[in-house]
Amino acid sequence: MRTSIATVCLSGTLEAKLRAAAAAGFDGVEIFEPDLVAAPQSPEQIRELAAQLGLSLDLYQPFRDFEGVPQADLENGLRRARAKFELMGRLGIDTMLLCSNVGTATLDDDDLVVEQLRRLGDLAADHGVRVAYEALAWGRYVSTYEHAWRLVRRADHPAIGTCIDSFHILSRGGDPRGIEDIRGDKIFVVQLADAPLLSMDVLSWSRHHRVFPGQGAWDLPAFLAHLMRADYLGPVSLEVFNDTFRQTDVERTALDAMRSLRWLEDRTAALLGANPAPVHLATLPRVEDPTGVDFVEIRGEHLEPVETLLRCLGFTYAGTHRTKDVRLWELDEARIIINETPTDSGRPAVAAIGFIVDDPQRSAARAQALGAPVVARRSQADEAVLQAVRAPDGTEVFFCSSSNAWIAEFAIKDGDPVAAGQTDAADTSVPEAGSRHRVDHVNLDQPWQRQEEGLLFLSAVLSLDPQPSLDVASPLGLVRSQVMRSHDGAVRLALNVAPPMVRRAGSGLGQVQHIAFSCPDLIAFARRARTRGLKFLGVSDNYYDDLSARFDLPADLLGTLRDLDLLYDRDDRGEFLHFYTATVGEVFLEVVQRIDGYDGYGAPNAPVRLAAQHAGRA
Amino acid sequence: MRTSIATVCLSGTLEAKLRAAAAAGFDGVEIFEPDLVAAPQSPEQIRELAAQLGLSLDLYQPFRDFEGVPQADLENGLRRARAKFELMGRLGIDTMLLCSNVGTATLDDDDLVVEQLRRLGDLAADHGVRVAYEALAWGRYVSTYEHAWRLVRRADHPAIGTCIDSFHILSRGGDPRGIEDIRGDKIFVVQLADAPLLSMDVLSWSRHHRVFPGQGAWDLPAFLAHLMRADYLGPVSLEVFNDTFRQTDVERTALDAMRSLRWLEDRTAALLGANPAPVHLATLPRVEDPTGVDFVEIRGEHLEPVETLLRCLGFTYAGTHRTKDVRLWELDEARIIINETPTDSGRPAVAAIGFIVDDPQRSAARAQALGAPVVARRSQADEAVLQAVRAPDGTEVFFCSSSNAWIAEFAIKDGDPVAAGQTDAADTSVPEAGSRHRVDHVNLDQPWQRQEEGLLFLSAVLSLDPQPSLDVASPLGLVRSQVMRSHDGAVRLALNVAPPMVRRAGSGLGQVQHIAFSCPDLIAFARRARTRGLKFLGVSDNYYDDLSARFDLPADLLGTLRDLDLLYDRDDRGEFLHFYTATVGEVFLEVVQRIDGYDGYGAPNAPVRLAAQHAGRA
Repeated sequence: MRTSIATVCLSGTLEAKLRAAAAAGFDGVEIFEPDLVAAPQSPEQIRELAAQLGLSLDLYQPFRDFEGVPQADLENGLRRARAKFELMGRLGIDTMLLCSNVGTATLDDDDLVVEQLRRLGDLAADHGVRVAYEALAWGRYVSTYEHAWRLVRRADHPAIGTCIDSFHILSRGGDPRGIEDIRGDKIFVVQLADAPLLSMDVLSWSRHHRVFPGQGAWDLPAFLAHLMRADYLGPVSLEVFNDTFRQTDVERTALDAMRSLRWLEDRTAALLGANPAPVHLATLPRVEDPTGVDFVEIRGEHLEPVETLLRCLGFTYAGTHRTKDVRLWELDEARIIINETPTDSGRPAVAAIGFIVDDPQRSAARAQALGAPVVARRSQADEAVLQAVRAPDGTEVFFCSSSNAWIAEFAIKDGDPVAAGQTDAADTSVPEAGSRHRVDHVNLDQPWQRQEEGLLFLSAVLSLDPQPSLDVASPLGLVRSQVMRSHDGAVRLALNVAPPMVRRAGSGLGQVQHIAFSCPDLIAFARRARTRGLKFLGVSDNYYDDLSARFDLPADLLGTLRDLDLLYDRDDRGEFLHFYTATVGEVFLEVVQRIDGYDGYGAPNAPVRLAAQHAGRA
Repeated sequence: MRTSIATVCLSGTLEAKLRAAAAAGFDGVEIFEPDLVAAPQSPEQIRELAAQLGLSLDLYQPFRDFEGVPQADLENGLRRARAKFELMGRLGIDTMLLCSNVGTATLDDDDLVVEQLRRLGDLAADHGVRVAYEALAWGRYVSTYEHAWRLVRRADHPAIGTCIDSFHILSRGGDPRGIEDIRGDKIFVVQLADAPLLSMDVLSWSRHHRVFPGQGAWDLPAFLAHLMRADYLGPVSLEVFNDTFRQTDVERTALDAMRSLRWLEDRTAALLGANPAPVHLATLPRVEDPTGVDFVEIRGEHLEPVETLLRCLGFTYAGTHRTKDVRLWELDEARIIINETPTDSGRPAVAAIGFIVDDPQRSAARAQALGAPVVARRSQADEAVLQAVRAPDGTEVFFCSSSNAWIAEFAIKDGDPVAAGQTDAADTSVPEAGSRHRVDHVNLDQPWQRQEEGLLFLSAVLSLDPQPSLDVASPLGLVRSQVMRSHDGAVRLALNVAPPMVRRAGSGLGQVQHIAFSCPDLIAFARRARTRGLKFLGVSDNYYDDLSARFDLPADLLGTLRDLDLLYDRDDRGEFLHFYTATVGEVFLEVVQRIDGYDGYGAPNAPVRLAAQHAGRA
């Protein structure tokens, strides 16, 4: 599949956009007119630069306000078109995008439009170029792809074809199946964009909120499959107007865009299955859901207070790595690696997560095929080889087998001071009842400008599914939170974006990361943790008064919750008990108990938690 | 008029919100339940704190999901209400807000709702409190204020009244005139919010985009006048859910909120005119449109390059101030003060603007009544006394009379090195033809979190009207630009908000400020400036090719534009010619010619300008 990207997707100068598109591996680009108008290079210089970079210039866009107009306006439109066709000659571009008329059309007359398209087609043919007619979702008289195609078919001109744009079809709730009825060679251009489901006017939605395929709510693989079934043979291009992408690092955005097309190609190939498309669609190494979290690594300086929290929660110190200065703590299937290494941010952070996958080598190969940067890792010849890549937020993602072979590399050495502390505080004599402890979820602070990239990364690389995002009120603004999870819930990551002022102030609130462990009996667990001296996050008395009003809980349960600083929630399926530890640096821990299939995260309690954490800092 | 504010409008802890509301001069607050639930203080402590601060606690809100439900749910609702009524007793609050049912209502039966409201009224009366029933715009069965009032009237219970909320009425396009038909003593609560006209789902609009009165698109003075005519005697409260206000400085937001109510009160009093309301509405000193810009002051270090630009533009050096180290440059009515003083930001900035007003003393008194901070200014006994306040973006706003008496304080002293340079470069022998040069507009970079505050400030203090905002593409993202202008266009300020990455990077692009001067013959002006050696901002050749395609300009005009780096635009009324100087530090200058009533700012050219400026920095 030939890949292309409109320059409007990217930030910076036209030259920077071309270089980034080439570096990310795109075959071609669409030149967005304002980018050329503002560029200091001549059209000939742009043409030469693209040739040097190995990029084809696939499309010149957009041309507007042409058809459905009276004669005088038509003549002016043809004059404008002639100037652009001459410019395209200088650029070496053979196709121009014509958007259905929004501003100047006054005549709702298909016969007239067909005639005017033919006039434009004749002029284009004279210049050796062609025109792709696209129905904008808000076009004055032509706003559906079916209508645009009817007009193109009736024009029956070799230089006039149509353009299929997923945004303009799906934003109107259009049915893309009709694409299969279009002759593939009359589809001159395909532009793809995904979008979140927003309830707003379609023009604002289009101009500000488009995202790359796989980052929104639409089924782009199914959409592309329709095009393949129509025997479309041309490039598949991205046209994404997005306020964030327009201002963020251009190389990074180009890689993100390319990842979306690689993912889309793979998914579309899977959909087409035994009915291969005429265009060869490259596939990726297969992915299956991760079956659990193997470990979480906390990295930073002065991590002893984190280890104190772990000890108080009942974790056991399992020793130091044989060649690295990292320590392992275990509680059943929950494993935390403590790595005393300075971080870039200067604060302790969840630096790595190990996911248990079916075939770590295959997962790593898939991640690399999706452009994920490999994490360089030194390992001795006799050690377990762990494959890792870096997620957009900087977290290292390790692909682990279910064998946990790496654990054997940790041992307690003679005179280990951490182990000496252990016998004092750990209460290993009390076995936990019921199912085993494990990591329930990990909350990761996300840079605001990498939300979409992070979402696509986790869904494409790890097969995690995005859940609906929600806003949680903190005393310093709304924190946006979105959970990515495996189908069975064995792996859950909550991606949190702190409000801008919090990020700017570096206040930490909302920027903290945390790890939640599941346990079978939270009340007993909390009592033992209290005995061991755990510092709980204190919960306001008013919370329990409100809880009582909301849920009519038995007085003794309410008293226990209040005494132990436990939080409570309920959904249609069951109940949720949880508590938080005090924050150490920028990390805190949570313990949860899911009862009868409760599937949330205690979101109604998050504002109470955030207020208590804010008060603790003030 | 008694003023009140819901704690949800403000950021921080409940205690910080109460202190900020009191400091801003509010009479009371509404307690937003989640703020209390998260607070470490007991209800009794909050009550005591409010009393110490002189704040009344006007409302406890919100109570939800009560009416239109089957019997079992009703009993649970009454149980929940009892707990809240008891809590209100501890807080000393006598009114609770009941929102029309969104989530649990299953019975669309007015008779039933009336009966259930009576049950709630009986329970409230037992606790010595009362309930204000509010129609949410998205209520399941009750979504208009007329319907809520019919139900309240039929319930006919002394403890049951209604709540009038401007958002829920105006967001649905409701007609607020019917408010006058409600008995004033049955309106228990009034909540006001303004909002920009957004085309999105009303729930998202409500939860994220409300603003204070005067900051949005609605006519809140007319709205409040209806309440006054209904003989409403209670407090007027602000309930504004706004993502920005939730995270920004709480004291500042509270002052902004109070300013909005002072402005609203004044405007409402003017509307009621000879029919005074039963509630005394305080008025402000009168304001009239400013008639021009008296001067613009550029402050910073190493401003000689700015003076070189001015000299090349034909400005004349008019001397140094007799007691201050500031210099004056003049070109007819355009006056620039150069103040060599370090700025907070460390870069040259438009630090002050003098506006010519009818009565500077009265304008200053009005600004101070609106809570504008006074700018401390030393002046000698024999100098013109200039009144100044500080705008939200930090710009000093001076109120000047048309006499320009202060100019006499500037003179050229013997041996002044600036004056020595003057005779070399200035071309004072060529008088400009036609009308006189003056400041056409000033563009000010705005902190993103102070847009609404800045808008209300300029409209309330200076009577400038907001124009529709638009987004301008720069190579580093979209710049939001909104013009505030006097009715006749004599004063125009463009408020620009740079995209987040630009602000963060401190790249300067989009953060620059500039001053535009009008002239009667731009081409001649540009030629003279070129002769004097002015550094123009270079414009790409591609721009002129595109201009030719768009406008079919005569070849000689196009050639002149291209030769001189001039830009061109056209609107329904006329034409616009303009050019930019090179940027010095973070300031640049523009010269414009408006032909035949052109009323814009060359917005289509802004991306070309931004790209050229970006290239100049790269």
